[in-house]
Amino acid sequence: MTPRSIAAIILAAGKGTRMQSDLHKVLHPVAGRPMLLHLVDSVAALAPDRSVVVVGAGRQQVEAAVAPLGIATAHQAQQLGTGHAVAQAEAALDGFDGDVLVLYGDVPLVSAATMRRMLDRLHGEDAPATVVLGFRPADPGAYGRIVAEGDRIVKMVEFKDATAEERAQTLCNSGLMAVRSSDLFALLARVGNDNAAGEYYLPDVVMLAAADGRASAVIETDAAEVAGVNSRAELAGIEAAWQATRRARAMAEGATLVAPETVWFAHDTQIGRDVVIEPNVVFGPGVRIADGVTIRAFSHLAGASVGEGAEVGPYARLRPGAVLEPQAKVGNFVEMKNAVLGRGAKANHLTYLGDAEVGAGANIGAGTITCNYNGFLKNRTRIGEGAFVGSNSALVAPVTIGAGAIVAAGSVITRDVAPDALAVARAAQDVRPGWAARFREAMAALKAAGKR
Amino acid sequence: MTPRSIAAIILAAGKGTRMQSDLHKVLHPVAGRPMLLHLVDSVAALAPDRSVVVVGAGRQQVEAAVAPLGIATAHQAQQLGTGHAVAQAEAALDGFDGDVLVLYGDVPLVSAATMRRMLDRLHGEDAPATVVLGFRPADPGAYGRIVAEGDRIVKMVEFKDATAEERAQTLCNSGLMAVRSSDLFALLARVGNDNAAGEYYLPDVVMLAAADGRASAVIETDAAEVAGVNSRAELAGIEAAWQATRRARAMAEGATLVAPETVWFAHDTQIGRDVVIEPNVVFGPGVRIADGVTIRAFSHLAGASVGEGAEVGPYARLRPGAVLEPQAKVGNFVEMKNAVLGRGAKANHLTYLGDAEVGAGANIGAGTITCNYNGFLKNRTRIGEGAFVGSNSALVAPVTIGAGAIVAAGSVITRDVAPDALAVARAAQDVRPGWAARFREAMAALKAAGKR
Amino acid sequence: MTPRSIAAIILAAGKGTRMQSDLHKVLHPVAGRPMLLHLVDSVAALAPDRSVVVVGAGRQQVEAAVAPLGIATAHQAQQLGTGHAVAQAEAALDGFDGDVLVLYGDVPLVSAATMRRMLDRLHGEDAPATVVLGFRPADPGAYGRIVAEGDRIVKMVEFKDATAEERAQTLCNSGLMAVRSSDLFALLARVGNDNAAGEYYLPDVVMLAAADGRASAVIETDAAEVAGVNSRAELAGIEAAWQATRRARAMAEGATLVAPETVWFAHDTQIGRDVVIEPNVVFGPGVRIADGVTIRAFSHLAGASVGEGAEVGPYARLRPGAVLEPQAKVGNFVEMKNAVLGRGAKANHLTYLGDAEVGAGANIGAGTITCNYNGFLKNRTRIGEGAFVGSNSALVAPVTIGAGAIVAAGSVITRDVAPDALAVARAAQDVRPGWAARFREAMAALKAAGKR
Repeated sequence: MTPRSIAAIILAAGKGTRMQSDLHKVLHPVAGRPMLLHLVDSVAALAPDRSVVVVGAGRQQVEAAVAPLGIATAHQAQQLGTGHAVAQAEAALDGFDGDVLVLYGDVPLVSAATMRRMLDRLHGEDAPATVVLGFRPADPGAYGRIVAEGDRIVKMVEFKDATAEERAQTLCNSGLMAVRSSDLFALLARVGNDNAAGEYYLPDVVMLAAADGRASAVIETDAAEVAGVNSRAELAGIEAAWQATRRARAMAEGATLVAPETVWFAHDTQIGRDVVIEPNVVFGPGVRIADGVTIRAFSHLAGASVGEGAEVGPYARLRPGAVLEPQAKVGNFVEMKNAVLGRGAKANHLTYLGDAEVGAGANIGAGTITCNYNGFLKNRTRIGEGAFVGSNSALVAPVTIGAGAIVAAGSVITRDVAPDALAVARAAQDVRPGWAARFREAMAALKAAGKR
Repeated sequence: MTPRSIAAIILAAGKGTRMQSDLHKVLHPVAGRPMLLHLVDSVAALAPDRSVVVVGAGRQQVEAAVAPLGIATAHQAQQLGTGHAVAQAEAALDGFDGDVLVLYGDVPLVSAATMRRMLDRLHGEDAPATVVLGFRPADPGAYGRIVAEGDRIVKMVEFKDATAEERAQTLCNSGLMAVRSSDLFALLARVGNDNAAGEYYLPDVVMLAAADGRASAVIETDAAEVAGVNSRAELAGIEAAWQATRRARAMAEGATLVAPETVWFAHDTQIGRDVVIEPNVVFGPGVRIADGVTIRAFSHLAGASVGEGAEVGPYARLRPGAVLEPQAKVGNFVEMKNAVLGRGAKANHLTYLGDAEVGAGANIGAGTITCNYNGFLKNRTRIGEGAFVGSNSALVAPVTIGAGAIVAAGSVITRDVAPDALAVARAAQDVRPGWAARFREAMAALKAAGKR
Repeated sequence: MTPRSIAAIILAAGKGTRMQSDLHKVLHPVAGRPMLLHLVDSVAALAPDRSVVVVGAGRQQVEAAVAPLGIATAHQAQQLGTGHAVAQAEAALDGFDGDVLVLYGDVPLVSAATMRRMLDRLHGEDAPATVVLGFRPADPGAYGRIVAEGDRIVKMVEFKDATAEERAQTLCNSGLMAVRSSDLFALLARVGNDNAAGEYYLPDVVMLAAADGRASAVIETDAAEVAGVNSRAELAGIEAAWQATRRARAMAEGATLVAPETVWFAHDTQIGRDVVIEPNVVFGPGVRIADGVTIRAFSHLAGASVGEGAEVGPYARLRPGAVLEPQAKVGNFVEMKNAVLGRGAKANHLTYLGDAEVGAGANIGAGTITCNYNGFLKNRTRIGEGAFVGSNSALVAPVTIGAGAIVAAGSVITRDVAPDALAVARAAQDVRPGWAARFREAMAALKAAGKR
């Protein structure tokens, strides 16, 4: 069997008024990635020939988000129902012959595996005209119902048109569907809008196919997978569901999460084995954690790579371009950005390492600041292997501290330091005996005068 | 209809022994405000003519808390029951003619809307003698039961005196009540203490009125609204309920809470639209967040005002008097107190801004400290528009950095810097070649000697 | 009755493959202590004469963990079932005559009280041959069932061998058992391995005793107490259960936990009365908090002692050896390690105090760093009573700041400062008028050139 061609139509024309946002609903992020792109990622796993996003209100934002991915858009100028929305994709699929998946930009957690099951069923036993994704929610509420015998759909019915008996059905319609392109647009052309809302409903294609004597099939999935987002509360619910799944996977793969409910992963976080994560750790996108790493509480990582056996935090902030070589340590109140900390090197306290390279085994004292920015340009700091930077030092980039060199505590280093040299840049200590006692007396007199 | 006069009697005489605290139970805070004052705030929305707090054990603490609000107190010297407690307020209401609400200082979440419903019912159909607030808890347990027909109370009965049939009733008595002042004290005068505890029970007024042929009405509310606090665990439960409600409101109004369960609001937090709040943010009292603000993880704000489009955190500590003008940025490990950060200005790393004014577009380098305190007085630091303060600088107040001026990294600035000038205050760099290598050898020899 | 001798056999030979870890399963920590040692601690409360841990896979790790406690180990070379495992302890119990408790290293939350109940029952009414600890899980699943009449065991049956009627029993076998030593090994010698797995099952001793006409008794406990750990998800579950119990105790004893679910205690945390703990506080081992202490959000404490009325955080990191005397204050982004902060002394912002002593009433300015490490040795900093260390100072240890002395802001202090003296160690301020304006012009020209 030659692989069938696949196209995806993702509906994203709805306004999302209840989000109360200037940002288009489908661009609100889940796990640090716009929800629409979660869906695009899942579709990509199927290697589709075409993808079309149907846009409407706020189309500029959505187009800008998908354009870099080479995904086409189709414009639904008026909101005339889901059937009408899908029909707008016809031109973009001109010349395409294969299977079409209909997805929703605000139903972002549908997996590639479920999409694959839908497509496989379309070509399975009896080759149904359409495949509908159904689910059984805890409270079926006002969802459209599916009346089925086995997996054959007897009737699809909107809740408001359903009889009491039909409403008693617990199998609901998610709206997701798989249909051959040769059927889809032909059926859609026959869908009418003779209903209270005056809209063209996509599910009507099922009953139209049935009228032609062609059956449709329903596939079931968990309600969580087809949860949709219409409000920020639902967005938070989707985020929570995604995180719970990801946390369970991290634990199954050998990470200890002391308090799993307080670890937030991003869509692409990579976590090794025998990693220990204390409570309250936030991962932004682009993080890779090797085996045997410990991440202490209150750490925040994004775009960072942490090598084997390294230790991070508590209160470590790793920003994009932060790289910890194996066994390196970054401690409390330390920020790294575009900086490499060599094997076994340490920056344990109150430090900013920006645009810097720190050699293996170097020790960066408490309160060290790399002064990487002069208001216009960013410059690099290079610290050699085994160097020792004393506490509260400022390293004014561009500057190089040689291997094995020592910077005395409290120094402001503006010129390169040779390997194995000591650099001191601090003022002489002047002591004025008794001054503090006199100062206190004067201040006390001032306060007393102020009260008079 | 002329507005009816309203008085509130809030019972706060109980010891709260189970709190295990030196602080009076009703002064324990919920959402950063003593629970008694939550009730006072809700009552204030009804514009009452009089409010009386009945105090007993620990009365000094409670009196000190309500005195600034001009609220009267009445002393219940002995704990002889709720009826007795309410009766102590009679003198404080001398000359008052209107409706009386009886509330409980340890039942803090009752809303003004519910109080209003109680008062409206008192003058509604059939004008009942009293209005009782009922609720249906998940587990009715040992609560007093209300036997009602429609909203007319047939019987109020303590659990221990209830028949099996009465105990099967799920409608329970919250204790809250609305009564006309002309009825309340007359009825209370007839309440006896012929019961096991020898106490005067407030609910007895309902049955006494019934004996006069006057009906009482029950109004129902959610169990959560009348939850009481007798222990720290219950206090935590009330806090959790309050926070859940507040989070839902923030989301409905257009804020994204990535992990709603990890954001803690204060009683008066104001949050704009399209605000994004990452996990783990704590709001103390007095915070105002404008539209379009991003608050990153692990931030802690109190008494702060954050302008449109500003960015806060992660790990930002905004203390009272912190003001971010629009588009300003405060980054990691930065503390602001009584300080203004101008439009678009940045303080991104490891900085303390106290008693300071930073002009628009200024850049405060990593590790900058405003030295605002000399052990006796606080002094101000003024930084002009577009100034650039190099990293690890100390600005010794009082001091002014002019607009467009630059402070070199690592400087200690003690005198004013003119606009557009450069200020440098750091020592010359002295380098001793090979010193570090000799130091290491000496240390190694020392260690070796120590082991011998 | 003379006290009976007690021995404990703890089984810890299983590999724990599902943990996906190089660390032995029973050594994974709960509340900061290896789960095996939780069990050892509970057993210790019974003052046992002997304890034996049966080891197998990964035995070196387990032996190293229990050796310092003087606990014997017995080696089970092949995994031939629980009965076989217990039998390996016979040599280690040579000469012992008393009661034996059989426990499981991966069932760590069993309390001493429950163990005591088991032992007491062994010598109670009818003196049963064995006492089995049963529980009723929400989902009995595939647990072995106990058929009992009263507390007399009629039958113990593995799930796979159970009839439908037996499977309907909700009383399950935890595996924990109390048996007299004189019975245990004699019964074990008669246990066979004629079953599908070819293993020797410990529960068979119950039925063997029954065959001798000797009854066994079952004692019930909560399912939570006998929860076992086979995966990191179950480890997280045990941790959560332990924390929930500990939080409830802290609240009952008079601590306010604003958000109890975000406070993580260690196994040995001591918390006083009227302590307030804000959201998100992590306790490592060895912390003692006195009465009246406030711990603000995002604090992390280990090995620290905090005196009465002291204030900690937010964002305070107290490491081992940190001691706050009463009324002392440690504020945001401050780290203390092996350091004492005297009565009423303050270190409020961005400070590192390592190997230091700070006298009563002293004030440590923002950004102060004790430079305690020269790459080889740690040295101490001593700061006298009432001293004032100006902001952004570096104190290069070993160094002493006398009582009442003042260190000027931005100083690097390398020599001792006498009491009441002022020490200044900073460079003169040099100002170059107009330099910043010229620099901006040059940079702008550079950028313009770069674009051409």
